[in-house]
Amino acid sequence: MKPLSRSSDRELILFANEAFYSAFATGDLDAMEKVWSMATPCVCLHPGVTPLYGREEIMESWEHILSDPAVTDIIAHSPHVIELGEFAFVICYESLSGGSLVATNGFVREDGLWRMVSHQAGPCQDAPEPDVDEEEDAEPRLH
Amino acid sequence: MKPLSRSSDRELILFANEAFYSAFATGDLDAMEKVWSMATPCVCLHPGVTPLYGREEIMESWEHILSDPAVTDIIAHSPHVIELGEFAFVICYESLSGGSLVATNGFVREDGLWRMVSHQAGPCQDAPEPDVDEEEDAEPRLH
Repeated sequence: MKPLSRSSDRELILFANEAFYSAFATGDLDAMEKVWSMATPCVCLHPGVTPLYGREEIMESWEHILSDPAVTDIIAHSPHVIELGEFAFVICYESLSGGSLVATNGFVREDGLWRMVSHQAGPCQDAPEPDVDEEEDAEPRLH
Repeated sequence: MKPLSRSSDRELILFANEAFYSAFATGDLDAMEKVWSMATPCVCLHPGVTPLYGREEIMESWEHILSDPAVTDIIAHSPHVIELGEFAFVICYESLSGGSLVATNGFVREDGLWRMVSHQAGPCQDAPEPDVDEEEDAEPRLH
């Protein structure tokens, strides 16, 4: 039973990561609010600026970011999951019109759901191109 | 008893973070090897390049980095700890000769010690200057 359970957790973690980028790409603030933890201390490091701490401050930043359609033109790809019990990382590339970033997203299991508690994105000069076939194999889709 | 124990954990996590930057600043590869987890999957995102996965690949990168005295001119300051049970984050600024970075460092408790499992550093235009007094209050010193 153990391998099945671990496989399922990995899928749920990837699903949470996908939900983050779906909310980002569609500019959906309500969805973004559901992605982030309700009860755990959070941190968000948008590229180039100082860290934001706590749900309120982080959601204010997303409200601002998601109101700009140019910024939400984002494709995430090549996710790599690291499972650490009740905590997990997803490292993935973010392909935007201005270039590529690499991100580390942290998730905790909260009331049976994986919720985001950390996000850091930064420039990545040698990021690979999105591979649609690979992405479809690796990530469960929201739609 | 709970507050004492939590306070102590925070100090141990800050100590592990300080040990990382001490190894970095002194170019001490042996110390850097002790900082990183021995048994948990790791990820290291040096600025601008693709992620490194696993202890072996990460240690090879540090061997290369620490052999360059110019790169190891680093001061970490203003650490912010987020404790999540057996996992913890330290977010801090890195002041280098070429400018400032902001880093997220992840730690797990492993055989009673906090070991690094993740590091991501990226540019930060509006990083504050190191405040020596504040730093001495916030961080236990190695020496």
